[in-house]
Amino acid sequence: LPSKLPYVGTTIFTVMSGLATKEGAHNLSQGFPSFDCSPRLSELVSHYVKNGYNQYAPMSGVPAFRESLAEKSSLVYGVNYDPETEVTITSGATEAIFCAVTAVVHPGDEVIVLEPAYDSYVPAIDLNGGVPVYVTLDAPDFKIDWQAVKAKISPKTRAIMVNTPHNPVGTVFSKSDLDSLAELVRDTDIYIISDEVYEHIVFDGEIHRSMMTHPVLQERTFVCGSLGKTYHTTGWKIGYCLAPKALSKEFRRIHQYITFSTVTPMQYALADFLKLPEHYEKLGAFYQKKRDRFNEALRASRFSFTPSKGSFFQIVSYREITDEYDYDLAIRLTKEIKVASVPVSVFYKDKKDDKLLRFCFAKDDEILDKAGEILSKL
Amino acid sequence: LPSKLPYVGTTIFTVMSGLATKEGAHNLSQGFPSFDCSPRLSELVSHYVKNGYNQYAPMSGVPAFRESLAEKSSLVYGVNYDPETEVTITSGATEAIFCAVTAVVHPGDEVIVLEPAYDSYVPAIDLNGGVPVYVTLDAPDFKIDWQAVKAKISPKTRAIMVNTPHNPVGTVFSKSDLDSLAELVRDTDIYIISDEVYEHIVFDGEIHRSMMTHPVLQERTFVCGSLGKTYHTTGWKIGYCLAPKALSKEFRRIHQYITFSTVTPMQYALADFLKLPEHYEKLGAFYQKKRDRFNEALRASRFSFTPSKGSFFQIVSYREITDEYDYDLAIRLTKEIKVASVPVSVFYKDKKDDKLLRFCFAKDDEILDKAGEILSKL
Ligand SMILES: CSCCC(=O)C(=O)O
Ligand SMILES: CSCCC(=O)C(=O)O
Repeated sequence: LPSKLPYVGTTIFTVMSGLATKEGAHNLSQGFPSFDCSPRLSELVSHYVKNGYNQYAPMSGVPAFRESLAEKSSLVYGVNYDPETEVTITSGATEAIFCAVTAVVHPGDEVIVLEPAYDSYVPAIDLNGGVPVYVTLDAPDFKIDWQAVKAKISPKTRAIMVNTPHNPVGTVFSKSDLDSLAELVRDTDIYIISDEVYEHIVFDGEIHRSMMTHPVLQERTFVCGSLGKTYHTTGWKIGYCLAPKALSKEFRRIHQYITFSTVTPMQYALADFLKLPEHYEKLGAFYQKKRDRFNEALRASRFSFTPSKGSFFQIVSYREITDEYDYDLAIRLTKEIKVASVPVSVFYKDKKDDKLLRFCFAKDDEILDKAGEILSKL
Repeated sequence: LPSKLPYVGTTIFTVMSGLATKEGAHNLSQGFPSFDCSPRLSELVSHYVKNGYNQYAPMSGVPAFRESLAEKSSLVYGVNYDPETEVTITSGATEAIFCAVTAVVHPGDEVIVLEPAYDSYVPAIDLNGGVPVYVTLDAPDFKIDWQAVKAKISPKTRAIMVNTPHNPVGTVFSKSDLDSLAELVRDTDIYIISDEVYEHIVFDGEIHRSMMTHPVLQERTFVCGSLGKTYHTTGWKIGYCLAPKALSKEFRRIHQYITFSTVTPMQYALADFLKLPEHYEKLGAFYQKKRDRFNEALRASRFSFTPSKGSFFQIVSYREITDEYDYDLAIRLTKEIKVASVPVSVFYKDKKDDKLLRFCFAKDDEILDKAGEILSKL
């Protein structure tokens, strides 16, 4: 069976989480919380499951849930999407990203990818016969050089993929990033596929600048989001796509044949829960404390870092400690000192090694303290 | 935005279910039960949701669930799949079918589709740049002419899609169908993608003959299944793929970037529930009663039909009543006599109209009685 994705091995998240379990290590690798969702939210799922909400949801999602999401966008970003035609529920943001890429990318089309990049973007492009065109962002600040992006635009450029807050490096788009991107795509047919799953996890008074908040971008963007990161329910696999009507129409044509629809009782539960803004409004402060707690411990160490501005990841440089390949080091630390992380090289096409590890701080305080203490002794 | 699936409108299932709701009609169109799952099963989900099973499942599925599925295949079909490497959980059988097609179909490859065919097969082939090659099965018995299938095989044939028990027509594969198919593909590189979601819904002493039960087929088949049809939980979107190791490896490479993983608490609940074979062993008898009840009412009508042998669908011919186009008739019956069905023409590429409607009998007895009574007066 000739492979369509010959370069794909076992994902780093599976490798590291598996190794962490086997080694009894503190698992700061894969991005999921070690704590549970709100009891109120699990109570709601229990209610809907026990009251017969167990058959197919509509293809585009439960109407009440789409309405709640549209209301939230209006409330938080001041942008209105029509729940009927512009909001689609997916089986996780990964499916949303895959459907958006599939909707726009025809064989031979170029798609600009800023790397480091989340590991599903390029396979999604490849599976559609597209050609990823890379712009490499550099440590330590990973600032986007928009002139470098512009230089990669060709008549074949069909889309640009963006991600803010950024996984793995924890940067966020500034107002000027949005303006620069808008300047590049204005008067072109280029679409934007925007991964904004950490929208509610931003720190230090930063705000999340969604692509939808810039009119030139909004009209051409598929905003891909997730409820799992916001409500500590990564295992429910509930994502969504917000996009103008014409884009959503094509998105749904694809989604209809990928998964058709998404788990029903969770959609009803989340529709109710989304009406309580206090839960997502407090999220940034909640994770900022965790980031600070972990970073505090690291300050005593020989690791160096700039505090993450968003997402639940902190990258750290270990250049002062060793010059091992980051992948080897991540494996070794998991085995020897029982702290699991993700090597940042896996997020680059050529496995560029800047001596960086990614730690997920969506973990219980005791785990963060213990891991921080161990790491600070290295 | 140029469409990749220009021929796709709103799916018939959405159209008819929507119209049924609007018209207050008895909804015998979309294939989902009007009754609920076992309270024991919803209790199990409630248990797992409330006890912290809310983060990512492993990419290939919860181990206990994969083991339960492997045990079931061994128990029911006498075929062993390795849960570690040959069983993959998906977000519905639709995702399983999409991933299997994507795993094998490269641009220009031909895929043989027996029509009438479930509506996701051809879009999945098209999205992968494949070329669907049709073999048309004819009313009233829809027997497969394997010589006709053979005549369509070319050096470009990459896969054959099969479906038993069959949606929409309710036929099942015989021993001789399996043998004939095996004869065709033996000594070729052709893969089989087999949609067996109604595996436990067969009637009149028939047995479900899974492709996995024939060694020549097993080694080249992606068996796509669903828990939703078996446990009255279509809205949970839990499907799976069973395939030999090399095939599963490529399948997982795709699945990893389509949805990554599937809703966790439902997987744990189903892992437990699958250990109680009485639930799926009684399913055929349960649906046979429903089929008989509905057919009994129709016997007094001017519709003609051969009783369904499997699935929860009954097709009926209305040739003696009217020669309207089946789509128009389905709409009209929903509006005028408040019974919704699905026109069979939608399952053919050229919308071939054999004057057939499909009724779903996975409905409460009162609904079946009421609909049967109304239809018998036509
Ligand atoms: C889908 S598993 C990976 C979770 C995640 O987003 C990450 O660790 O980056
Ligand atoms: C996924 S909605 C369609 C349900 C179904 O399988 C059918 O009605 O044929």
